[in-house]
Amino acid sequence: VEAGDAPAVIAELEPLHAADIADFIEQISSQQRRAFLALSADQLDGDVLSELEEGVREEVIEALPREALAEAVRELDTDDVVDILEDLEDIDQAYILETMESDDRAAVESSLAWPEHSAGRLMQSETVAVPQDWTVGAAIDFMRTEDWLPDQFYHVILVDERHRPSGYVTLGRLLSARRAMALSELVEESFLSVEATEEEEEVAHLFNKYHLISMPVVDQSGRLVGVITIDDAMAVLDDEHEEDMLRMAGVNEESSLSDRIIDTAKGRFLWLFINLITAIFASLVIAQFEDEISALVALAVLMPIVASMGGNAGTQSMTVAVRALATRELTGQNTRRVIWRELAVGMINGSAFGLIMAVVAGFWFGLPMLAVVIALSMFATLASAALSGIVLPVMLDKMKVDPALASGPFVTTVTDVVGFFAFLGLASVMLL
Amino acid sequence: VEAGDAPAVIAELEPLHAADIADFIEQISSQQRRAFLALSADQLDGDVLSELEEGVREEVIEALPREALAEAVRELDTDDVVDILEDLEDIDQAYILETMESDDRAAVESSLAWPEHSAGRLMQSETVAVPQDWTVGAAIDFMRTEDWLPDQFYHVILVDERHRPSGYVTLGRLLSARRAMALSELVEESFLSVEATEEEEEVAHLFNKYHLISMPVVDQSGRLVGVITIDDAMAVLDDEHEEDMLRMAGVNEESSLSDRIIDTAKGRFLWLFINLITAIFASLVIAQFEDEISALVALAVLMPIVASMGGNAGTQSMTVAVRALATRELTGQNTRRVIWRELAVGMINGSAFGLIMAVVAGFWFGLPMLAVVIALSMFATLASAALSGIVLPVMLDKMKVDPALASGPFVTTVTDVVGFFAFLGLASVMLL
Repeated sequence: VEAGDAPAVIAELEPLHAADIADFIEQISSQQRRAFLALSADQLDGDVLSELEEGVREEVIEALPREALAEAVRELDTDDVVDILEDLEDIDQAYILETMESDDRAAVESSLAWPEHSAGRLMQSETVAVPQDWTVGAAIDFMRTEDWLPDQFYHVILVDERHRPSGYVTLGRLLSARRAMALSELVEESFLSVEATEEEEEVAHLFNKYHLISMPVVDQSGRLVGVITIDDAMAVLDDEHEEDMLRMAGVNEESSLSDRIIDTAKGRFLWLFINLITAIFASLVIAQFEDEISALVALAVLMPIVASMGGNAGTQSMTVAVRALATRELTGQNTRRVIWRELAVGMINGSAFGLIMAVVAGFWFGLPMLAVVIALSMFATLASAALSGIVLPVMLDKMKVDPALASGPFVTTVTDVVGFFAFLGLASVMLL
Repeated sequence: VEAGDAPAVIAELEPLHAADIADFIEQISSQQRRAFLALSADQLDGDVLSELEEGVREEVIEALPREALAEAVRELDTDDVVDILEDLEDIDQAYILETMESDDRAAVESSLAWPEHSAGRLMQSETVAVPQDWTVGAAIDFMRTEDWLPDQFYHVILVDERHRPSGYVTLGRLLSARRAMALSELVEESFLSVEATEEEEEVAHLFNKYHLISMPVVDQSGRLVGVITIDDAMAVLDDEHEEDMLRMAGVNEESSLSDRIIDTAKGRFLWLFINLITAIFASLVIAQFEDEISALVALAVLMPIVASMGGNAGTQSMTVAVRALATRELTGQNTRRVIWRELAVGMINGSAFGLIMAVVAGFWFGLPMLAVVIALSMFATLASAALSGIVLPVMLDKMKVDPALASGPFVTTVTDVVGFFAFLGLASVMLL
């Protein structure tokens, strides 16, 4: 299918969901993509565009003639338009905005005025809001006469005379209530709105925590300016997770399988370079003990074990910390208890592996003092790994630095340096 | 607040959302929790119970008298009841089922009959379904007369005469359409239902991919048995991410900050033990080159750098692979291209860091051949790290083993062994 004749491919794709077409476009190679777009540019749906991941989408947008792009964008909800436009250059943005209807353009422009990654960028401007003193019947009649209603909406938002949201009624309740009933009697118990400047990550967290389906967005004066629906919040949550996971591993979070090889290599280079610096730093520690190593090569054989165990124990604590910070489980109140917990866990496992390694090293090299040295250094390394694994992310978070991004190199440096220094230093004092 | 008088605390919690009360219960210490429960057991809401994370929930359930538990469970939707019951012991399950109303009990029992982590466990049995040939007016009248409608629903599902779903209509469209209109004219274009035996992870993926809000669940014969709403799918997605992230770091995915210290230590012990085995394995490689190391201690100083860089490059590829497998971006079709990409990225960065380290080692130790050895071994290690980082997760996935859980130790073993062997082996041949 992927090789030759484009019309056949296009016919094949026709009945598919936009998300599947987007998947197809992502999975073929760059060359195939160009060939495909050359033939199908004018038939590309706006929905497909908004389903594409950023890297590929840029490629596709560059390949599309401006008119086809404007055409594709016109059918979309304003939140999807914003999502596409925010990555475009100013000239292209302006061109597409010009071709839009004035209502939609105004909505998109005001949404683009909010900061990147804010609730204002995520929301759609089409809201279904009615005065808070209306009845069920009035609301239903209103909805039946209006024809601009958004594709997807699940609540009617009640607003006061200054257009500030005061509650919402689910459509299910609205449908099952008598016409004469006041809307105010049907409002959901818990009602949450969010300021347009709030970070999208926080919004996603609120959706997940409170099982929300949609959330009104207000401006600084509390007036309703839009609404965020859960499907967008779910996509944000998914992206944030991906970001955390990739960042922790030192992979550029915007990288994707469809990037160019050289870009991917560059993206990973920086992290590896930082790691190289920390590794050289650890080697400098080892270099201080060259004499000891020449005297007893067993030290060179065993020292990577200590460092490797420290690195893994540190990663365990760090991952728990990064995750707990992301889910707001690790808050100011329980920080001290959690740090103590991690240290205790590190000391318990440090003792356990200290004992195990003492036995292993004792049998392997037959030197009782070497066994004692490795036991003590294993304990020190695992305890300090656990401690730095929890303390460093917490400190970075306090300093408003993303702990997922920055913790790794620090923790590795601590565990390597402590591991080598403890092991070789103790050996130098106790063994030689 | 946390210390002394319980009535004050209870009064403080009263107006809060169940999710916040659950957070409070999770964050206080075990002792405080017991004291709190002793005083507030009979006032505990079912909602709070379903918001608690598993470990703490077990603790709370054990502390609650059976009657209070049954009372709390009675108010919940069937999907939340299932969620709580599936972790209970059989006797307690039976007791709570007995106290439920017969309709609800039947629904919960049939849901519990589906496998764990399946769509059948996730769904709620209360569905709003009407014959597919009805009109808007008929559907609205039906909803107005029925009083058992679920708390949250967003679609009316159309079913044929054998109760098989054929499409759905959003409540928004229903409300904005004329009464005489046929429901079949209002159905959403894309309609997806899922079998009750499908894995919940797959369900969450479908929700996220197709921006679904709710999805009908059918049994083997295609009959409608329940519906899954997006908030539950979002929670599953969140859990799956957490699981992947923690598993990759070797942390038991069911662990939480509120577990007992000794349990946490035990949970991490196994992973560290596996790591110890691989580290010892790597040390055995080093031990083969004891003579070379005695002859040239610089080898001991530099070898951790090679292994560390390999470990990091391997983790980068592995994380990308685990993530791409989880999001279904890495499928059979593009596997070969992705493997080649990773290998190419590994070779590019291997060349770059080979050169850098050649310069560093050359200046540091003043031995040209040592520079050549470290350059070559850096290249070999980074290339094999990238390759094993992508190939091992793909292979494990093919073997139906969770790549997030099992890839780490394999990749580390490969990078350590290759790193030490290449560096020390080349040194032995070329230098000494």
